[in-house]
Amino acid sequence: MTDLAPDDHAASPGRRIVTACVLIIGNEILSGRTQDENLGFLARGLNDAGIRLREARVIPDIAEIIIATVNEVRRQFDYVFTTGGIGPTHDDITAQCMADAFGVPLIVHPDARRLLESHYPQGHLNEARLRMARVPEGAVLLPNPISRAPGFQIDNVFVLPGVPNIMRAIFEQLRHRLLGGRRMLSRSVSCGLGEGILAHDLSALQDRWPDLEIGSYPYFRRGDFGVTLVLRGTDGTRLATATEELKQLIASLGGEPQEGLAEN
Amino acid sequence: MTDLAPDDHAASPGRRIVTACVLIIGNEILSGRTQDENLGFLARGLNDAGIRLREARVIPDIAEIIIATVNEVRRQFDYVFTTGGIGPTHDDITAQCMADAFGVPLIVHPDARRLLESHYPQGHLNEARLRMARVPEGAVLLPNPISRAPGFQIDNVFVLPGVPNIMRAIFEQLRHRLLGGRRMLSRSVSCGLGEGILAHDLSALQDRWPDLEIGSYPYFRRGDFGVTLVLRGTDGTRLATATEELKQLIASLGGEPQEGLAEN
Repeated sequence: MTDLAPDDHAASPGRRIVTACVLIIGNEILSGRTQDENLGFLARGLNDAGIRLREARVIPDIAEIIIATVNEVRRQFDYVFTTGGIGPTHDDITAQCMADAFGVPLIVHPDARRLLESHYPQGHLNEARLRMARVPEGAVLLPNPISRAPGFQIDNVFVLPGVPNIMRAIFEQLRHRLLGGRRMLSRSVSCGLGEGILAHDLSALQDRWPDLEIGSYPYFRRGDFGVTLVLRGTDGTRLATATEELKQLIASLGGEPQEGLAEN
Repeated sequence: MTDLAPDDHAASPGRRIVTACVLIIGNEILSGRTQDENLGFLARGLNDAGIRLREARVIPDIAEIIIATVNEVRRQFDYVFTTGGIGPTHDDITAQCMADAFGVPLIVHPDARRLLESHYPQGHLNEARLRMARVPEGAVLLPNPISRAPGFQIDNVFVLPGVPNIMRAIFEQLRHRLLGGRRMLSRSVSCGLGEGILAHDLSALQDRWPDLEIGSYPYFRRGDFGVTLVLRGTDGTRLATATEELKQLIASLGGEPQEGLAEN
């Protein structure tokens, strides 16, 4: 569906780098009351779709901040995904903020109203619940297979609920319509050497492979420690060659390289 | 220690609202490879210290982005806490970025060098490991009781490692030195009513208590569903009265209000 494609890359999908930003909207994350579960899921889902998540922000339920932030990031990234604030209560202000950000009226979408009418028993679709049918004028509904109240898309911004299982269900239904760019591939190699032992040669490896991203992540678990090295890039052949060099490098320093399962 | 206090509120601690921003630095969070565990911990720790976490950002290991972001948020918030990127490898660029953001040279801090010298066996403090002693000129070290390599503070920015247990240990050692403002108190009440049933009266309650933040969070667990309502504010008496009103409101709608344990 072309309405989901940022205009400027519709002509050459799969070639350029496509970027995204996630906005997590909610005081409950910033107060520490709720542990966010949505970012990791969206990060992996976007990565699988060939989209680079370049930034995520957690912002409070304050209209001016939501409006200013969405207007900043929607111009900076190809896609923006928001979570939170589209329920029926007074603190659910995301739909109104999106309308304000885009300078369009907030309307009751007739299809969303019909969905809610068929979901609730006769007489139970009160004014509060009808709030969940409100979208900025021009928005496209994103089907919700669980609780019916839809998310919506306006231009390059996808507005999703905060409840994790509902957010995931809506994302699963829209992901095949996202236009990704060059897919980021990754390989990972772990070993029991300390980062300080590897660092010098690892830096030289990074210099030899400037188009790859080489990350070094120490781990400490069950009395065991070591480091996982993650190589990421879009050229599978170059990635494989660099991974072999890395394994030789580890062995030359006395370590035992162990290639990990596919990770992001 | 006054060097930890933002200048403009040192004279009146405990009275004004003190704000913070968390920057999570790391490609591994944005790729979905690693689930962040630091934000929730810092959110709760800051809340306990009377500091409002107003925004969090996850940004990649790209120098220009780190520098621009820290320069934006350090002027906007009283405190900034960063996690990630202060280890010994080539992808650990946070210390250099902080020096660049503040326009000061990156130096090897003599105390940090001594800490590392005493931690590693003779001859094991190589050039890579010595990178962990580098701080922007003028920075104050933040002791690390686990692996010695310290975090550091420069002006109102606290630079912490990304490994959760080390980050936590460093934060625990610095938290009593943070100057908090008016402490945010909270009460929570759950019930089995749907949000759509409560929304109208809840909105009226919020209008009657404009100085309180009333959040509504639906839950679905083990076949059970309902909503948790969280009231937050700085005046304990007003909070208690509003909580009683909320409980009566729930009962009047046929629900059974259950007051929760203290949450954030």
